[in-house]
Amino acid sequence: MATRMKLKLKTVFVLYFMVSLLGLVYALMQLGGQHCDCREHMSVITQLREELRRLQEQLKKSGATKLPPKLPAKPSLPTIYVITPTYARLVQKAELTRLSQTFLHVPNLHWIVVEDSPHKTPLVSDLLFKSGLTYTHLHMLTAKDRKLQEGDPSWLKPRGVEQRNEALRWLREDRRVQPGGDRQQGVVYFADDDNTYSVQIFEEMRSTQRVSVWPVGLVGGMKFESPVVEGGKVVRFHTGWRPSRPFPMDMAGFSVSLKLVLANPEACFDGEAPMGFLESSFLQGLVTMDELEPKADNCSKVLVWHTRTEKPKMKREEALQAQGLGSDPAVEV
Amino acid sequence: MATRMKLKLKTVFVLYFMVSLLGLVYALMQLGGQHCDCREHMSVITQLREELRRLQEQLKKSGATKLPPKLPAKPSLPTIYVITPTYARLVQKAELTRLSQTFLHVPNLHWIVVEDSPHKTPLVSDLLFKSGLTYTHLHMLTAKDRKLQEGDPSWLKPRGVEQRNEALRWLREDRRVQPGGDRQQGVVYFADDDNTYSVQIFEEMRSTQRVSVWPVGLVGGMKFESPVVEGGKVVRFHTGWRPSRPFPMDMAGFSVSLKLVLANPEACFDGEAPMGFLESSFLQGLVTMDELEPKADNCSKVLVWHTRTEKPKMKREEALQAQGLGSDPAVEV
Repeated sequence: MATRMKLKLKTVFVLYFMVSLLGLVYALMQLGGQHCDCREHMSVITQLREELRRLQEQLKKSGATKLPPKLPAKPSLPTIYVITPTYARLVQKAELTRLSQTFLHVPNLHWIVVEDSPHKTPLVSDLLFKSGLTYTHLHMLTAKDRKLQEGDPSWLKPRGVEQRNEALRWLREDRRVQPGGDRQQGVVYFADDDNTYSVQIFEEMRSTQRVSVWPVGLVGGMKFESPVVEGGKVVRFHTGWRPSRPFPMDMAGFSVSLKLVLANPEACFDGEAPMGFLESSFLQGLVTMDELEPKADNCSKVLVWHTRTEKPKMKREEALQAQGLGSDPAVEV
Repeated sequence: MATRMKLKLKTVFVLYFMVSLLGLVYALMQLGGQHCDCREHMSVITQLREELRRLQEQLKKSGATKLPPKLPAKPSLPTIYVITPTYARLVQKAELTRLSQTFLHVPNLHWIVVEDSPHKTPLVSDLLFKSGLTYTHLHMLTAKDRKLQEGDPSWLKPRGVEQRNEALRWLREDRRVQPGGDRQQGVVYFADDDNTYSVQIFEEMRSTQRVSVWPVGLVGGMKFESPVVEGGKVVRFHTGWRPSRPFPMDMAGFSVSLKLVLANPEACFDGEAPMGFLESSFLQGLVTMDELEPKADNCSKVLVWHTRTEKPKMKREEALQAQGLGSDPAVEV
């Protein structure tokens, strides 16, 4: 009985020992061949995910940067002088507000705002002062016979001509220093207050040597107008109207180096130019088609849109004003 | 001798059995608590590394590394959830671009963009991805019988109703946690893509407890519409039409606390509401006039404008397309 039990126990023990030993060996082989440490994997996965998130954030910013007002000036970057003619109307403050908020994302931007007015208005003065931008505030009243009258179609006379010329005059006077000096580094751009600008377009134009060009969306009855680039050169223009014009481009579609503007003190906009020739009147003394510098990925990307804001209807306002119940004129709109 | 051996073997066997049993129990607990699947982890890690490499490539190409760092999130500030319904049209990209550039100035803003479309479009997806903003991209097609048809006057049927409701549904699902939790701190604002927003309005609305209100410029045939404040309370409304409506305010003129939105899961916009009653259909279940919180210096400042962008004319485009000379459809406008 004792011997049988001894034998039985011994057999069971040996079998059990061997089976568990096999298990141990198998486990060790597993560990050696493919070591699986959950915590380590999880930590690698977490690290990778954090890195991914960081990169995604960075990448998102590639088109636009999130910055608090008043960017620090970067001495190495050429200044972009943005010339904006503006005139009093119901949507003026709205337009200038959203424009200024776009410009706030652009380092080294100097905004030259020229009012079509006999004096600087408090609305524009105040807006510029609070904008956080570097700016110059000018005014130049358009001569009455050159001005669009109420009811005139907007193409009848070009708007903003004398204001743009006044800004050019100011620039030439302000930057008149020893030629080749640092104060001549810069780019000049004409940005009307109703258009839409991606902040990217400013980085495109910053490297302008003579005249940079790019497509403009929603202009001239077209989805876009654009220089056509072949082999890195502008060879013609995609436009819906008179492609034979010297420079069949919208005002929003080019920038000029400050040096070129200063070196050609007579170059300006001709208010008497036939319709559609205003841009050409300024550019044809400065550059040839062959010299144009195509930007925005060889003119394949639309980064500026010729948007127009509807004139708001004021029928109810007028009706209420007739009853003495109009909107408080002390509230600036 | 046999007895001693029997005892010894028995003891060793029992001890060995117990120790290995403990080991087995431990192994089983490990398996139950944290199932470690090496192959799954390795595949996740490989995927993440590939995604990282892809993003790094993209980042290099975009040159984004040169841009300044993103404004850090401020945990102390309530998030502003801006809900923007949008639909495909010629000016869509321009409008969303300038809107996104305004929002980029606002810390802790979460943009919820809802397309009126059967699917998310590449144009909006891409714009959001590159925007630098925190966002959620949704879509909800408006039922055909509720949709404005080509040529309908814009007041005939309200636009964006089902898209705003979809955003509310998403918010309620996403923020559904224990009541009073941190994830319920926030403000909800409905910002259409054609309006103009001063960045200041977002700081005004950030302190919303229930419903904040302020003037809206250029709306309803008026210079502005506004709550009228006396003794710090809204007592009536300055509006050109039916001041007797429960809340005669434009969509751009109020914000609602996230808590209030979550506490009233049935509150939404009623697309069948009579013209001019859409805002009221949402607000009347949430708040009384007496509870409204006037912002923007007791509703004396206009910081939002109901601007509208003209529909661009495409006559030349159509004429050129007929000749096979239309604008390259591969260029996104």
